[in-house]
Amino acid sequence: MRILVLHGPNLNLLGTREPDVYGTTTLAEVDASLSALAAELGVAIESAQSNHEGVLVDRIQAARADGILINPGGYTHTSVAIRDALTGVGIPFVEVHLSNIHGREPFRRQSLFSDVAIAQVAGFGPFSYTVALRGLVEFLRAKK
Amino acid sequence: MRILVLHGPNLNLLGTREPDVYGTTTLAEVDASLSALAAELGVAIESAQSNHEGVLVDRIQAARADGILINPGGYTHTSVAIRDALTGVGIPFVEVHLSNIHGREPFRRQSLFSDVAIAQVAGFGPFSYTVALRGLVEFLRAKK
Amino acid sequence: MRILVLHGPNLNLLGTREPDVYGTTTLAEVDASLSALAAELGVAIESAQSNHEGVLVDRIQAARADGILINPGGYTHTSVAIRDALTGVGIPFVEVHLSNIHGREPFRRQSLFSDVAIAQVAGFGPFSYTVALRGLVEFLRAKK
Amino acid sequence: MRILVLHGPNLNLLGTREPDVYGTTTLAEVDASLSALAAELGVAIESAQSNHEGVLVDRIQAARADGILINPGGYTHTSVAIRDALTGVGIPFVEVHLSNIHGREPFRRQSLFSDVAIAQVAGFGPFSYTVALRGLVEFLRAKK
Amino acid sequence: MRILVLHGPNLNLLGTREPDVYGTTTLAEVDASLSALAAELGVAIESAQSNHEGVLVDRIQAARADGILINPGGYTHTSVAIRDALTGVGIPFVEVHLSNIHGREPFRRQSLFSDVAIAQVAGFGPFSYTVALRGLVEFLRAKK
Amino acid sequence: MRILVLHGPNLNLLGTREPDVYGTTTLAEVDASLSALAAELGVAIESAQSNHEGVLVDRIQAARADGILINPGGYTHTSVAIRDALTGVGIPFVEVHLSNIHGREPFRRQSLFSDVAIAQVAGFGPFSYTVALRGLVEFLRAKK
Amino acid sequence: MRILVLHGPNLNLLGTREPDVYGTTTLAEVDASLSALAAELGVAIESAQSNHEGVLVDRIQAARADGILINPGGYTHTSVAIRDALTGVGIPFVEVHLSNIHGREPFRRQSLFSDVAIAQVAGFGPFSYTVALRGLVEFLRAKK
Amino acid sequence: MRILVLHGPNLNLLGTREPDVYGTTTLAEVDASLSALAAELGVAIESAQSNHEGVLVDRIQAARADGILINPGGYTHTSVAIRDALTGVGIPFVEVHLSNIHGREPFRRQSLFSDVAIAQVAGFGPFSYTVALRGLVEFLRAKK
Amino acid sequence: MRILVLHGPNLNLLGTREPDVYGTTTLAEVDASLSALAAELGVAIESAQSNHEGVLVDRIQAARADGILINPGGYTHTSVAIRDALTGVGIPFVEVHLSNIHGREPFRRQSLFSDVAIAQVAGFGPFSYTVALRGLVEFLRAKK
Amino acid sequence: MRILVLHGPNLNLLGTREPDVYGTTTLAEVDASLSALAAELGVAIESAQSNHEGVLVDRIQAARADGILINPGGYTHTSVAIRDALTGVGIPFVEVHLSNIHGREPFRRQSLFSDVAIAQVAGFGPFSYTVALRGLVEFLRAKK
Amino acid sequence: MRILVLHGPNLNLLGTREPDVYGTTTLAEVDASLSALAAELGVAIESAQSNHEGVLVDRIQAARADGILINPGGYTHTSVAIRDALTGVGIPFVEVHLSNIHGREPFRRQSLFSDVAIAQVAGFGPFSYTVALRGLVEFLRAKK
Amino acid sequence: MRILVLHGPNLNLLGTREPDVYGTTTLAEVDASLSALAAELGVAIESAQSNHEGVLVDRIQAARADGILINPGGYTHTSVAIRDALTGVGIPFVEVHLSNIHGREPFRRQSLFSDVAIAQVAGFGPFSYTVALRGLVEFLRAKK
Repeated sequence: MRILVLHGPNLNLLGTREPDVYGTTTLAEVDASLSALAAELGVAIESAQSNHEGVLVDRIQAARADGILINPGGYTHTSVAIRDALTGVGIPFVEVHLSNIHGREPFRRQSLFSDVAIAQVAGFGPFSYTVALRGLVEFLRAKK
Repeated sequence: MRILVLHGPNLNLLGTREPDVYGTTTLAEVDASLSALAAELGVAIESAQSNHEGVLVDRIQAARADGILINPGGYTHTSVAIRDALTGVGIPFVEVHLSNIHGREPFRRQSLFSDVAIAQVAGFGPFSYTVALRGLVEFLRAKK
Repeated sequence: MRILVLHGPNLNLLGTREPDVYGTTTLAEVDASLSALAAELGVAIESAQSNHEGVLVDRIQAARADGILINPGGYTHTSVAIRDALTGVGIPFVEVHLSNIHGREPFRRQSLFSDVAIAQVAGFGPFSYTVALRGLVEFLRAKK
Repeated sequence: MRILVLHGPNLNLLGTREPDVYGTTTLAEVDASLSALAAELGVAIESAQSNHEGVLVDRIQAARADGILINPGGYTHTSVAIRDALTGVGIPFVEVHLSNIHGREPFRRQSLFSDVAIAQVAGFGPFSYTVALRGLVEFLRAKK
Repeated sequence: MRILVLHGPNLNLLGTREPDVYGTTTLAEVDASLSALAAELGVAIESAQSNHEGVLVDRIQAARADGILINPGGYTHTSVAIRDALTGVGIPFVEVHLSNIHGREPFRRQSLFSDVAIAQVAGFGPFSYTVALRGLVEFLRAKK
Repeated sequence: MRILVLHGPNLNLLGTREPDVYGTTTLAEVDASLSALAAELGVAIESAQSNHEGVLVDRIQAARADGILINPGGYTHTSVAIRDALTGVGIPFVEVHLSNIHGREPFRRQSLFSDVAIAQVAGFGPFSYTVALRGLVEFLRAKK
Repeated sequence: MRILVLHGPNLNLLGTREPDVYGTTTLAEVDASLSALAAELGVAIESAQSNHEGVLVDRIQAARADGILINPGGYTHTSVAIRDALTGVGIPFVEVHLSNIHGREPFRRQSLFSDVAIAQVAGFGPFSYTVALRGLVEFLRAKK
Repeated sequence: MRILVLHGPNLNLLGTREPDVYGTTTLAEVDASLSALAAELGVAIESAQSNHEGVLVDRIQAARADGILINPGGYTHTSVAIRDALTGVGIPFVEVHLSNIHGREPFRRQSLFSDVAIAQVAGFGPFSYTVALRGLVEFLRAKK
Repeated sequence: MRILVLHGPNLNLLGTREPDVYGTTTLAEVDASLSALAAELGVAIESAQSNHEGVLVDRIQAARADGILINPGGYTHTSVAIRDALTGVGIPFVEVHLSNIHGREPFRRQSLFSDVAIAQVAGFGPFSYTVALRGLVEFLRAKK
Repeated sequence: MRILVLHGPNLNLLGTREPDVYGTTTLAEVDASLSALAAELGVAIESAQSNHEGVLVDRIQAARADGILINPGGYTHTSVAIRDALTGVGIPFVEVHLSNIHGREPFRRQSLFSDVAIAQVAGFGPFSYTVALRGLVEFLRAKK
Repeated sequence: MRILVLHGPNLNLLGTREPDVYGTTTLAEVDASLSALAAELGVAIESAQSNHEGVLVDRIQAARADGILINPGGYTHTSVAIRDALTGVGIPFVEVHLSNIHGREPFRRQSLFSDVAIAQVAGFGPFSYTVALRGLVEFLRAKK
Repeated sequence: MRILVLHGPNLNLLGTREPDVYGTTTLAEVDASLSALAAELGVAIESAQSNHEGVLVDRIQAARADGILINPGGYTHTSVAIRDALTGVGIPFVEVHLSNIHGREPFRRQSLFSDVAIAQVAGFGPFSYTVALRGLVEFLRAKK
């Protein structure tokens, strides 16, 4: 089982900026803990980050994966293109957010992904990713 | 660390009705897998279900817990009273849903809980609960 | 064929309060005329009233009926829990109202039941019930 | 007691088109069963159908009836002219729909008739008419 | 100078029905007083009433007039076709209403005519017509 | 019969500014033609203009008149205080506008006066006033 | 004169939880000061609190009182059933809130009670109750 | 293959009125170019125009065609009756507009036809019709 | 402790106009009963009324008071300027209304003051003022 | 005459993914049929596809064309930047969609292009492109 | 070149109240720095402040200026009268705000001035005025 | 003090396209006048333009500046990603627009930047930039 992890815009800043809001965990550390968990769960994992909507679309189109874990960052609320790429390739995906987007500015409450995702996990900080990876793997295994 | 698990209205029907939508896992099985995971994580756990809004409010007020896992069911969209009970007792809680509420009827997209929850997990079916329990425990341990 | 009749909150006041609005027919009289009609139509009938949302949910879950006649009263506009109970048990139901809810306050125009009901009858006063019972029985017999 | 039954646009197609949606009962059969019921109830009945809004207005203005049973079809959501004709002649009327309009497209949820009708019956298929006729007659007799 | 007066649906009922709301002046009397005023102002006048939207469109297309006085009745709020006929023939028109439509049901507050009319007169009862005729004639004479 | 004419803010600019929009008739000329018409109709008339909302409220409270003709200008859309003064003194009034407010910016389409006015006249330019005065006098005489 | 005081959900927590928001006055102390004031005003008073919507409906139906003082708590924004009970029994009531609900979350700005209450008092903390009791008693005495 | 072309209200004015907006091509010329193209494509074609909603409904009900090309004119935004006729007869149809309705008044942006049409063509002036005919024929042939 | 009482537009009409709506108590009598209560409570009080928004702003800016009791009348729904004056001078204030504004026209349900007021009292008629004065004084004394 | 054809995000997937929805025609085949038609019509044509919003903006800015045919894909609903590029270069363009966007999710009903496009063609599948090319060429030739 | 500077309600409080929000610069100091800059730019300048909407309207009507710099304060969101005065006199104006109104309460986001102003400057504190004066003068000089 | 100037999509067209709307000043000239002013004010300045959202995000993340001047062009209304980059790096920024966006299409009235910007300057054409640079520098110096 192969899992693709995609991080959207500004997630490369994780851990080095606004540490009081987003904590001091860096994106590299998030990816490391995902890799560790993937090994534990016996799945292959690959990660990518981009600030470019088109690059994320390209990356999804090129995916050879059984499931996708995506934190679309700011594109959560504005990118029909990424949504269409995900439904176009037909790979089941889980939407992940570090913060609880439901408790922030009104425009963050609308996600263009959540109605076509398998599931949404939001608010656990860096744990959102590992929690979501477990859920995705369990879901995919149950479906077989 | 003690965790209270609350199941809202109609969740007692789980596994015996509409199995094509909600699967064949019963609520007892969900609670059993939560207990098993709680033991693995080293936390105490207690579960309750009610179809009565007032009973859920009473139960929250009486809670002696470090964290709450709640699936408010149909009260998700209509109960300010349960929301106020949760914020009133000040115990951190995670909102859990079996189905992906974001992909259903429009009235299910509004949650009266999500902006005051730590986190929301929705869509993994019965795995939503175990995934959410892990997230809640990790979050509470990190906060200490 | 068994029919369950459910009366929501404040319908126990029927006939004794605000007679100029709701008439002088009591709930007992409504139930009596329903029983008479049920006998005429050759169906078994059972009635219950509650002011408690949770009790109505419990009652629906416990139903052993081929059809439900429900006047959800004030819960018409606010109870996702009762709606979910009705769709959860999968028993066809008809929504009944004494008054014409479409001609009253704006918040009464939204029903959380009408889109999942077989049919809606509103405005005939106490006759709404008998009219609806005929419709429900004819509908169920035609479906067989 | 005289009752006028009015069928709006496209109801002349009943029974011959889209039988899986609207059933195989024709409009002539609906009128026949209404006539039979009228005889049973001891009231005079007259029926008319038109696809033309203006013809329906003319027909209502010319009515010599104690009550009107109207299924405004597609004009339910768009005709202030027919509404004004009904309130202009001051004859009590009941709004009837074959299908449950509350469970269809959003624009079908708004009726320009329901707030000035005595009552609304929707969703019983062809039984909606007979059920509504009973309700109307009972209502008119109780009012005397 | 020729003026066409058009009365929309249900205005033929004027004076004979709901006299407490619309008064006892009949449409014939309204037309008579318009004719008298037209003679006084030295303009030719012609009147027509129809309950049919299409007939009103036809009549406007066939008009040989310098100005139109129209009370669209119930079509005020629903007829793009009549609006398009009026702008299509390019004859200046005044919108007239017997009652003050701004103080009635919310759906009567939206007029599909008022933004393309020269002027709107509403609320003077039968005097709305004579007042509007004076205004229209004065406006047309001033424009020359 | 005494009539009070009230001109709201910026109407003192009439005729001297933006003549292509509002014409070259001055407010003095409007008042002169109203006086001439009042003499013809046999009613007493008095005029006032103010740019101050409070002054207009004071003037209405001090009115000793049988009817008021008011062009609230920019206060049409914003002054509950003037509305309350008019309903407070209980003198019937007609709302007048030079331009067709229904064909301008969206915020001009909402009037805080029209639902409590006898009538509204808009769009005839300076003729709006004389037309409205006739309507008001005819209405008041008919009511007696 | 008898007054019933009803406290809605979570008000039993008053004074012991979130003291920085709601102060340190307990519900017992609120009831004590109401009793003292009632004695001073010469009226009989009775108090009840419940977290259950249905219990509040039952309590209102059973009321033998000349006036009701109700703080519906979280049910303020969601309970048509309690509203209907209050209008059903026809006892004049005053809506009370400890906090200024108008300055909190948007969903708290809509009350299902305020349009049918005699009056609303919000924002004085525990003094809201005593202030409201005085107002209610003065109002009832003036009405006699 | 037989195609029915339906022109809605005011399209009979085409080419003779407002030539600066709609051009100088008449409806007869549009029909002629459609006939020429139909001959070229080897399909039978028939055209009709009406200003009457009911006549258009009648005409659709009577259609013996494989496809319909309809420009509903002003009824685009207001006629559920014509929509229901089209879905009732189950003949695939294409919605055509001369002008780009998306760039005009807001009320023209809502079409009651577009969600049930095969396709929509708008903005090419008279070419909209020929372009749409080609599309419809190609679509129908591909479907076989 | 000094309290300033401000009455907005049209409150000078109190008691002399529309007595069936607002009662026969005059503004002078309201001020007298406030003075009597102020004496009883041991606070200094000063009253002012104006129909002019700017005068009310000036008066607030000039206030030397510990608390303000304001009935903004028609400015409740339209005056950001008075709101800004109140928050600008930083004096705690209570918003008072004679009538229950929540049960009147929709535009009266929006207050520009309530979210920055300490408290709101509405619906007790003239008693609203005395009740609010008690609340304000108790609140200010408790805060010290 | 030169025509530029632009395909937005995910259109490169055409024919190879979700063939049941979008058919089995590939983007290369679409471009080939457009080239064939262009040759027939005697115009030069050039095609480009990109998943990157910025690349599409760059490409439009660099265009040396008399007309543009654009299927903005997911950017239809979200890209003001592409809209501004099109209006910035001032080249007339036609908006094309494979599917009938009016019959899909609500967010797909809003196009940021349609009000500034010459025309919109949607719903003919791959034929949308050839139909639109004919329309665009005919429109441009007629304009000369 | 003459410039009129107008300060709306409550700006006379500047510098002496709420210094933590609006700073300690007084209105006199703002005017002084504007005078200094005017001298540097070689333009004549005049300043006025009022809390009265009517006074601001009068002042604008009386203006003999080539440009106006206006901070409408609380009237920004509520005064059509001042807007109409500005467009009535036809003097180009710039809208200035000390604070960033876009980041405050929702009702402050709507300006009745911004769509008819040349430009808007908001958020620089007292520097907003000098920055705006430079912009206005440069704009007026470039236009000559 | 270092200032970064960022120009969004289509601003590279400035001066060469649509000169009647945007004038004949080129982007190079804008940058030159900014450099001249920067020299005068004693600050270092650097400029960049891109049509790519992702490139703008990258550029902001890489910024080593004390303040940012950004004209987000079409991304003003659609890019949460750029907004998040600006708040993520925590550098104070000013939002600049050539045209008065408040007087254009409705969708241009919503900015995703204005509530988190220090200030917004819009409408002065090319002078918007220099005016904004002065404001930003003065603001930053005052803050120190």
